[in-house]
Amino acid sequence: MKVAIIMGSDSDFQVVEKGYNILKDFGVEVDVRVISAHRTPDEAINFAKNAEQNGYELLIGAAGKAAHLPGVLAGCTPLPVIGVPIRSTELDGLDALLAIVQMPPGVPVATVAINGADNAALLAVQILSIKYEDLRMKFKEYKKQMAEKVIEKDKKLSEKLANN
Amino acid sequence: MKVAIIMGSDSDFQVVEKGYNILKDFGVEVDVRVISAHRTPDEAINFAKNAEQNGYELLIGAAGKAAHLPGVLAGCTPLPVIGVPIRSTELDGLDALLAIVQMPPGVPVATVAINGADNAALLAVQILSIKYEDLRMKFKEYKKQMAEKVIEKDKKLSEKLANN
Amino acid sequence: MKVAIIMGSDSDFQVVEKGYNILKDFGVEVDVRVISAHRTPDEAINFAKNAEQNGYELLIGAAGKAAHLPGVLAGCTPLPVIGVPIRSTELDGLDALLAIVQMPPGVPVATVAINGADNAALLAVQILSIKYEDLRMKFKEYKKQMAEKVIEKDKKLSEKLANN
Amino acid sequence: MKVAIIMGSDSDFQVVEKGYNILKDFGVEVDVRVISAHRTPDEAINFAKNAEQNGYELLIGAAGKAAHLPGVLAGCTPLPVIGVPIRSTELDGLDALLAIVQMPPGVPVATVAINGADNAALLAVQILSIKYEDLRMKFKEYKKQMAEKVIEKDKKLSEKLANN
Amino acid sequence: MKVAIIMGSDSDFQVVEKGYNILKDFGVEVDVRVISAHRTPDEAINFAKNAEQNGYELLIGAAGKAAHLPGVLAGCTPLPVIGVPIRSTELDGLDALLAIVQMPPGVPVATVAINGADNAALLAVQILSIKYEDLRMKFKEYKKQMAEKVIEKDKKLSEKLANN
Amino acid sequence: MKVAIIMGSDSDFQVVEKGYNILKDFGVEVDVRVISAHRTPDEAINFAKNAEQNGYELLIGAAGKAAHLPGVLAGCTPLPVIGVPIRSTELDGLDALLAIVQMPPGVPVATVAINGADNAALLAVQILSIKYEDLRMKFKEYKKQMAEKVIEKDKKLSEKLANN
Amino acid sequence: MKVAIIMGSDSDFQVVEKGYNILKDFGVEVDVRVISAHRTPDEAINFAKNAEQNGYELLIGAAGKAAHLPGVLAGCTPLPVIGVPIRSTELDGLDALLAIVQMPPGVPVATVAINGADNAALLAVQILSIKYEDLRMKFKEYKKQMAEKVIEKDKKLSEKLANN
Amino acid sequence: MKVAIIMGSDSDFQVVEKGYNILKDFGVEVDVRVISAHRTPDEAINFAKNAEQNGYELLIGAAGKAAHLPGVLAGCTPLPVIGVPIRSTELDGLDALLAIVQMPPGVPVATVAINGADNAALLAVQILSIKYEDLRMKFKEYKKQMAEKVIEKDKKLSEKLANN
Repeated sequence: MKVAIIMGSDSDFQVVEKGYNILKDFGVEVDVRVISAHRTPDEAINFAKNAEQNGYELLIGAAGKAAHLPGVLAGCTPLPVIGVPIRSTELDGLDALLAIVQMPPGVPVATVAINGADNAALLAVQILSIKYEDLRMKFKEYKKQMAEKVIEKDKKLSEKLANN
Repeated sequence: MKVAIIMGSDSDFQVVEKGYNILKDFGVEVDVRVISAHRTPDEAINFAKNAEQNGYELLIGAAGKAAHLPGVLAGCTPLPVIGVPIRSTELDGLDALLAIVQMPPGVPVATVAINGADNAALLAVQILSIKYEDLRMKFKEYKKQMAEKVIEKDKKLSEKLANN
Repeated sequence: MKVAIIMGSDSDFQVVEKGYNILKDFGVEVDVRVISAHRTPDEAINFAKNAEQNGYELLIGAAGKAAHLPGVLAGCTPLPVIGVPIRSTELDGLDALLAIVQMPPGVPVATVAINGADNAALLAVQILSIKYEDLRMKFKEYKKQMAEKVIEKDKKLSEKLANN
Repeated sequence: MKVAIIMGSDSDFQVVEKGYNILKDFGVEVDVRVISAHRTPDEAINFAKNAEQNGYELLIGAAGKAAHLPGVLAGCTPLPVIGVPIRSTELDGLDALLAIVQMPPGVPVATVAINGADNAALLAVQILSIKYEDLRMKFKEYKKQMAEKVIEKDKKLSEKLANN
Repeated sequence: MKVAIIMGSDSDFQVVEKGYNILKDFGVEVDVRVISAHRTPDEAINFAKNAEQNGYELLIGAAGKAAHLPGVLAGCTPLPVIGVPIRSTELDGLDALLAIVQMPPGVPVATVAINGADNAALLAVQILSIKYEDLRMKFKEYKKQMAEKVIEKDKKLSEKLANN
Repeated sequence: MKVAIIMGSDSDFQVVEKGYNILKDFGVEVDVRVISAHRTPDEAINFAKNAEQNGYELLIGAAGKAAHLPGVLAGCTPLPVIGVPIRSTELDGLDALLAIVQMPPGVPVATVAINGADNAALLAVQILSIKYEDLRMKFKEYKKQMAEKVIEKDKKLSEKLANN
Repeated sequence: MKVAIIMGSDSDFQVVEKGYNILKDFGVEVDVRVISAHRTPDEAINFAKNAEQNGYELLIGAAGKAAHLPGVLAGCTPLPVIGVPIRSTELDGLDALLAIVQMPPGVPVATVAINGADNAALLAVQILSIKYEDLRMKFKEYKKQMAEKVIEKDKKLSEKLANN
Repeated sequence: MKVAIIMGSDSDFQVVEKGYNILKDFGVEVDVRVISAHRTPDEAINFAKNAEQNGYELLIGAAGKAAHLPGVLAGCTPLPVIGVPIRSTELDGLDALLAIVQMPPGVPVATVAINGADNAALLAVQILSIKYEDLRMKFKEYKKQMAEKVIEKDKKLSEKLANN
C-alpha cells in the first residue's frame, strides 16, 4: 500500500504537506519527490515508467502554472494519477487547473480543487480502499468524525448566539 | 467489478455513452442511471448510501451547469467518485467544471475534462486495476494500441505530405 | 416570521453575521446553523425536508468553492431558498457564484452577490413583506434612511471640496 | 396574486416565454412588459415606483449585456425583484449575470441562471407561496411530478440499455 | 466648461480624486457628487435629466460591482457619459467593467480602464477640446510633458545601468 | 463636422457599417479607412498625427484580437478616440475588449461594447453635440424615437398576449 | 535550414497547414509530425532529444486542451520551441493558451495566438533570419507586400463608399 | 550578439531585471530602454525601425494592462520580438497576456508567461544559439545545472522527511 506524491517544485511542499500527513495518518506508505516535468523530464518519465514495478499503486502529481507534471506522469504509467493544481500568484491557479483537468481522450488525470492536496490524499485513500478493506473502515471512521465536528460546531454557534 | 454512471439528466447520455461503451469493452459491469441531485434528491442520496453494499466499487457522476450531483454522491458514500462536467450552451461547461472540481476539504471528487466521459471510464478502469490484475493488462494493451494509432497517423501524414 | 441561515462551515459566519444582524434588526426570528451538504448530508437534507413544518418560511444558504448547499436545500423543500456565494481565496468566489446561480430548470436558488449576506437578509425581508405588512413598512423606512445617508455623504463631500 | 415580467427588449420574449407560461399554469396573474432601463428610463422607474399600489407583489426583470433593468427596478420598489440574465452572443451571458447579481449592499436582486426564465417563474411561485397556501400545494405537486418524470426517464434508459 | 463626476459611493473618491485633480489642473470646472443609481435613483435621474440645462457639458460616472450608474445617467441625458469601473475586492473590477462597457445599442457609455479615473478626466479634456481651443493647447502640452518624462526616465535608467 | 472610422481589417466593415450609416444619417461627414497598426504602422501613425489638421474632430478605431489600433491612434493625436472591440471567433471579443479598454494612464480610449459600432457612432454624435447644437437637437429626437419604438413594442406584445 | 512542426493530433493539421505552407513558401525545409505528449511520450521525448543532432534548428508544437506538447518538447531540447494553442470546442482555446504560455522559469515556450499557426511559421522565419540573411530579405519583402495589400484594400473600400 | 529590452514604464524594471541579469550572465550585450508605445510612440517606432541597423538581433518588449508595446515593435521591425506580459493589480495580468499573445496574422510576438522576464531572456538565448554555437553550449550547461538543482532539492526533501 504505497503511493508517491511528486511535486514540480519544492516550494509546493507547503501545500502538499497537508496531503502527506493525511496519508501517513491513514497508514499509507508515501514517498514525496521533487521532479519537474520540464527541468528534469528524464526523471519524471523514468519515475512514472517504473512506478508500477517499484510497488506504487497510485501517483499524486502537484504543479502550478502550465502544470504538465500530472499529465506527463499519466502518459507514462498505467497507474491512476491524481492531479493537484497549485495556485501561483498570477492567475489564481486557474491556469494550473485547466492545464491539469483538460486532458485529451485516453490519458485522464483525476483532478481535485486548486491547492487541494488534502483531498488528493483522501481520494487516494478512497481509491486504495477498493482493494484494502481496512482502509475503507478507517475512511468511514474519518467521514464520521468529520461529520461530528461539523455537528459540534453547529451546536457551539447556536449556544453562542443564544447567549447573546 | 461493477460501477455505476449517474447522470443528472437523460440528455447527458449522448456525452456519457462514450464512457459507457469503454467500460463495457473492458468487461466492467456498468449500470447507467438518471438521478438528479435537485429533482430526486432522495434517490441520489439513497443510491449513494447503498452503493457500497449493492456491490458498486466506484461511481461516476455526470452533470452540467451548477453540477452538484458528483459532490452529493461523494458526500454519501465511501466509494471514490469520478465527476464529469457536462457542457451546457451558456458558459461552455466552465460552471460545471468549477462546481465539480472545487470540492471542499474532506469530500473529493476525481474530476476529468469537460464532456470527458471517455476519460472518466478509463480512469475508472485504472482505479479498478489496482485490485484486478486482468484489467491492468487490458489497460496496458489499450494504451499500447492508442500509441500505435498515433504512430500510424504520423506515418500516413508524412507519406501524404511527401507525395505532394 | 422565522427564517434560517445555513452555512457550510462555521468560518463563513464572519460574512454571514452582517445578514444575521439585519434580520434581527427587522424583528425577524432567525436561526443560524452550520450544516455541510458534503460532510453532513443527512443533516442538510433533514433540515430542508422539515423546514416548512418547523415553521421556517424561507432559507438562506451560504457556501464557498463548489457551493452545493443552497441547491441541495432547494431540492428538498418547497420554501424559497436564497444563496450567498462565499469568496474563498483561490478563485475570488466565481466558483461559488456559478455553483449557486446556475441551477438547472425546476430548482431555483435566489442568488445574491459574492459575500452578499447583507443583501440576502434584505431580500428575505422583502420576500416576507409580501405577507407581513409591518415588515414592508420597516423596509420602506430602511430604504428611505439608506437614501438619506447617501444624500448626507453627498453634501459632506461637496462641502469638503468647496472648502479646499 | 399578480406579478410582472419586464424585459429590456422584445427579442428577450423567446427566453421569457417559458416563465410566462409557468406562471399562468400556476394560476398567477402575470403582465409582460417591454421597458428599457436605458431607452425608456422614465417608464422603468414609474413602473417600479407604482408597482406596489398597482397590485403587483413581485417583479421579474430580464435583460442582457450590461443588464441594469432588474437593479433599476429594485432601486425603485420595496417589492422583491427577481433577475434573469439573458445570453447575448458576445460574452455568453456572463456580462448580464455579473451586472445583475453583483448588486451593492442595500438593493438585492434575486438572480437565477443565465436564460433561466423558467426558474424565475418557479422562484416567484415559491415566494408567493409564503402567503398563498394553495400555491404551496400546487408547487409541491409540481415538484413531485418533476421527480416522477426523472424516475420514469431513469427506468426507460435502464430498459433500453438492458435490451441492447 | 463644466463637468460633473458622479460616484455611486463616497468610498470611490479615493479612486476618483486623481481625475478630479486633473480636471482642476486643466481649468475645467468640476462638481463631484455622491449619487447612487440604486439607493437614490430619483437623485440620479433628476441629476442626469437636468444636467444639460444646469450647464454641464459632459458627465463622468464611477461605480463598482453591478455598476449601473453610468448607464442610468446615459439613459437620461443627451450629454456624453464617461464610465469608470471601480475595482471591488471580489472580482477584480471585471464585473464593473462588463456592467459599464456592454451597454445595449442606443445608449453608449465611453468606458475607460478599471480604476482609470485619471484617464476619464483626460478623455473629458480631449472631448471638451473639440469646442474649446485653449484646452486643446493645454492637452498637447500635457502630452508633450508626459513624453518628456518617459524620455527622462529612459535616460536615468540607462545611466544607472551603465554605472553598474 | 468630420470624423474617421479606422479599421484594422476590411473584414471588420460588416460590423463597422452600422456605425457608418448612423453617422451619415446624422449628417456627420465620415471617412472609413483600412489601416493596420501592425501591418501598416506608418500609415496608422501618420493618419493619427495629421488627423487634427486634416479636419477630423474625432477618431473611431475598430479592431479585433490584440486590438492595438485605437490605442496607437490615441497615442498620436490630441483628438478623442473611440474604440470598438471586434469579436473574433476564438475568445468572444474579450481579448479585444481588454486590449482596448485597459489603456495606461495618460492615453485614454473611449471604449464601447464588443461589436458596438452603432454605439461608437452615437457616442461620436453626443461628443460632437457639445460644439454643434444642431446635432444635439437631432440626437434628442433620436433618443425620443428610440423610446417610442420601445413603447410601441410594449403595446404590441401586451395586445398579442391579451388576445391569446 | 530545417524545422519541425509537431502536432498532438492529426486533426490539428487543418489549423497547422497554414503554417506549413508559409514555411515552404519561404524555402524552409519542414517536417510535420503527429506525436502526442500523452499517448506517445517516448516518441515526443526522443524526437526532442535528437532534434538538434537531426539538423532541426527550431521546433513548433501545436496542441489543444491541456496542451503539454510544446512544454514537453522544450524540456528536452536546447532548441527554441514555438507553441500554438489549438482551439477545442469547450473552452475556446483558453485552456490550451494558458497550458502553453504559463511555463515555469527555466523552460520558455514562444507562444503565439490561439490557432495562430501562420504566425508560428512567420516567427520561425524571423528567428531563422538572425542566421540566414536571405530569409531576412524574403521576410522584409513579405512584410512589404502585406502592407501593400492593406493599402489596396483601403483604397478599394474608399472607392466603393465614394460611389454609393 | 546584442539585444534590447524595452519596457513601457520604468516601474516594470523590477520584473524585467531578472531577464536583464540572465542575459548578462550569458554574455549577451543588452540595452534596457523605457519607451512607451502610447506616450512616446515616435521613440517606439523609430527604435524598432532602426533596431536592425543598430545591431540588435532580437527585441524583448515588456508591458502591462493594454500592452501594445511588443506588438507595435513587431510591426516596425523584421527582427523577432519576445513579449512579456506584466501583471498589474486589476486583472492579474490576463489583460496584458491577451493583448500581447493574440496578435493578428502576419505580425507574431513570441509571448512568455505573465511576469516571465527570466524566460524571455532564456528564450532570447535559445534563439541566438541558432547562430552562436558558444551560446548553445552555455545554455546546455544552464539546463544541466537547473536539472541538478531540482535533483538536489529532491534529495534534501527525501532526507528531511526520512528523519522525521
